[in-house]
Amino acid sequence: MQDYPIVIGEEALKQIPKWIKTHEPSQVMVFADTHTYSDCYPLLSGYLPTHHVTVIPPGEIHKNLSTCEILWQALTDHQFDRKGLVINLGGGVLGDMGGFVAATYKRGMDFIQIPTTLLAQVDASVGGKLGIDFQTLKNHIGIFQFPQAVLIYPPFLKTLPTPELVSGFAEVVKHHLIADRDAWRKLVQVTDIHALDFPAIIQHSVEIKSKIVELDYKESGARKALNFGHTLGHAIESLFLEEADLTTLLHGEAIAIGMIGESQIAHQMGKLPKDELEDISHYILTHFSKVDIPKGYLDAVYTRMLQDKKNAHGSILCTLVPQIGEYEINIPLQKSHIAEALKFYRELNV
Amino acid sequence: MQDYPIVIGEEALKQIPKWIKTHEPSQVMVFADTHTYSDCYPLLSGYLPTHHVTVIPPGEIHKNLSTCEILWQALTDHQFDRKGLVINLGGGVLGDMGGFVAATYKRGMDFIQIPTTLLAQVDASVGGKLGIDFQTLKNHIGIFQFPQAVLIYPPFLKTLPTPELVSGFAEVVKHHLIADRDAWRKLVQVTDIHALDFPAIIQHSVEIKSKIVELDYKESGARKALNFGHTLGHAIESLFLEEADLTTLLHGEAIAIGMIGESQIAHQMGKLPKDELEDISHYILTHFSKVDIPKGYLDAVYTRMLQDKKNAHGSILCTLVPQIGEYEINIPLQKSHIAEALKFYRELNV
Repeated sequence: MQDYPIVIGEEALKQIPKWIKTHEPSQVMVFADTHTYSDCYPLLSGYLPTHHVTVIPPGEIHKNLSTCEILWQALTDHQFDRKGLVINLGGGVLGDMGGFVAATYKRGMDFIQIPTTLLAQVDASVGGKLGIDFQTLKNHIGIFQFPQAVLIYPPFLKTLPTPELVSGFAEVVKHHLIADRDAWRKLVQVTDIHALDFPAIIQHSVEIKSKIVELDYKESGARKALNFGHTLGHAIESLFLEEADLTTLLHGEAIAIGMIGESQIAHQMGKLPKDELEDISHYILTHFSKVDIPKGYLDAVYTRMLQDKKNAHGSILCTLVPQIGEYEINIPLQKSHIAEALKFYRELNV
Repeated sequence: MQDYPIVIGEEALKQIPKWIKTHEPSQVMVFADTHTYSDCYPLLSGYLPTHHVTVIPPGEIHKNLSTCEILWQALTDHQFDRKGLVINLGGGVLGDMGGFVAATYKRGMDFIQIPTTLLAQVDASVGGKLGIDFQTLKNHIGIFQFPQAVLIYPPFLKTLPTPELVSGFAEVVKHHLIADRDAWRKLVQVTDIHALDFPAIIQHSVEIKSKIVELDYKESGARKALNFGHTLGHAIESLFLEEADLTTLLHGEAIAIGMIGESQIAHQMGKLPKDELEDISHYILTHFSKVDIPKGYLDAVYTRMLQDKKNAHGSILCTLVPQIGEYEINIPLQKSHIAEALKFYRELNV
């Protein structure tokens, strides 16, 4: 299934002329956002033949059908046919949405992902999940489809503001927690994010993720491991996006809360030992500021969790970490678990 | 690839309780239009467990993103998860769109097609093409995905107005022209559409279509055979839909024009003999009223043909019938071919 190249390193962008020479696309379109257009596109353009560029505003708030219409319109206006190529230059939002647009334009054209954020490099660009939000429901509309290639150029990370880098780091933490206890022990020794060896970190995360996706592309089993932190995290992210009183969170900030909350739920269920729960919470709060989740939002969080794509037959099904480096999928959650987890998070001392 | 059942006959609807017993969907949603809700749903509902129904207005004009949003919203409001089942009860518009909605909701849930028109029974429901129109571009947004089952219940055809029956018959004619010279010789002897043996006609068309789809699911080669009549036909259909001065055509009416025009183009190229062109034109005009295509729309038709999904590298690529029962794909067309074909159509004597 996963028979497309993922190239990580300084030589990643050089793959483009090779790909184009082999596949001879009829036209090339680059989708970028205003940030990647100014910061990353100048490094990319030298590797491209004649092409078009469509620039959209950045941010999760634009990951919707209206923006898709702008992108489909751009392909239509330039009379792209099915043999055209789309290059998605951006973070998770742009890659998920640009991939969805390409995969549904005339029932599917080729696309290459060039992730520019840490989040996209270690997570979003790998695994073939494409889609957009619907109202405030994350990735509610989408499909599974692999790109033709993923080209990961670590120097793009230098263009990222630190909060974005930290946000992406949440998925790195997740990969360690579900799959690699030894690497976790080393990771926790690094408290300054800028001291990390990013090419090695990206390689490690991509390997873990690819291995899991290989086992279960369509998320009927093992792939749900990757949702650790996301059942609660996505609900928190939706809530903060939608409620006028709350400040929108970065994806990783929400997932950081989700990982602490779901670790505490595992502990409630007698799965995760207390010292590991404390290690996880402490390390996550070293990198992620604690967020104020006002009381009174339990129902709002719960309702959103009921919409999670991994649910079945009306139960919230969650992935938990019974001990660091392992995972269990399809654990049913009750509202009371969520209430207690939110209380635990609120009472954490930084 | 095509490993889903297509059941044709009186027993088709009885497959539903069996499917549901085996697969245990978490919930069931029926998508219908106002016609199929009143005429077909009463025959279906007895075979269903507790379920929801969402009814949309009928017609190609509603095959768009706005209607998709209504359908996604209905699934969301009823908290459908990925293990739910959508049943699409309707013609090509409803099946293509309802299938697209199901296949993209939470990145894909199961769906069953129950085609209620001749067009959908012999064509749209078979082959896994899903999608919607974008502006006036037909099926411009979509994906390839097979349903879990196609259940074809010929008695539904009794609910159809004659023009709808005739419209669907265009695809039957097409299947004969591209693939079965002997059957064509028998078909032309039937000039009253109500005298046809529909279960046999449907079986024959589904077999031809399935065989071609099996060869080439993603339309890189043989499947383009099925586009005979559609390169010109779709452009005419778009034009008549969009232009205020022209009356919207049924799909089959447009394809009937497309088949005559493209037969004449094959003749222009020295491929199709004159007597076969005359046979084809004459037989088609036995069933389909001649349509007035005012002069002055050549550019409008040509521009739309340039948007055809089967094009590549800027050329209009068309499927032609070099003799009845055979096809050739990827034939490049010039604007002058189209001009002459439209002239030929206009001058035909009924």
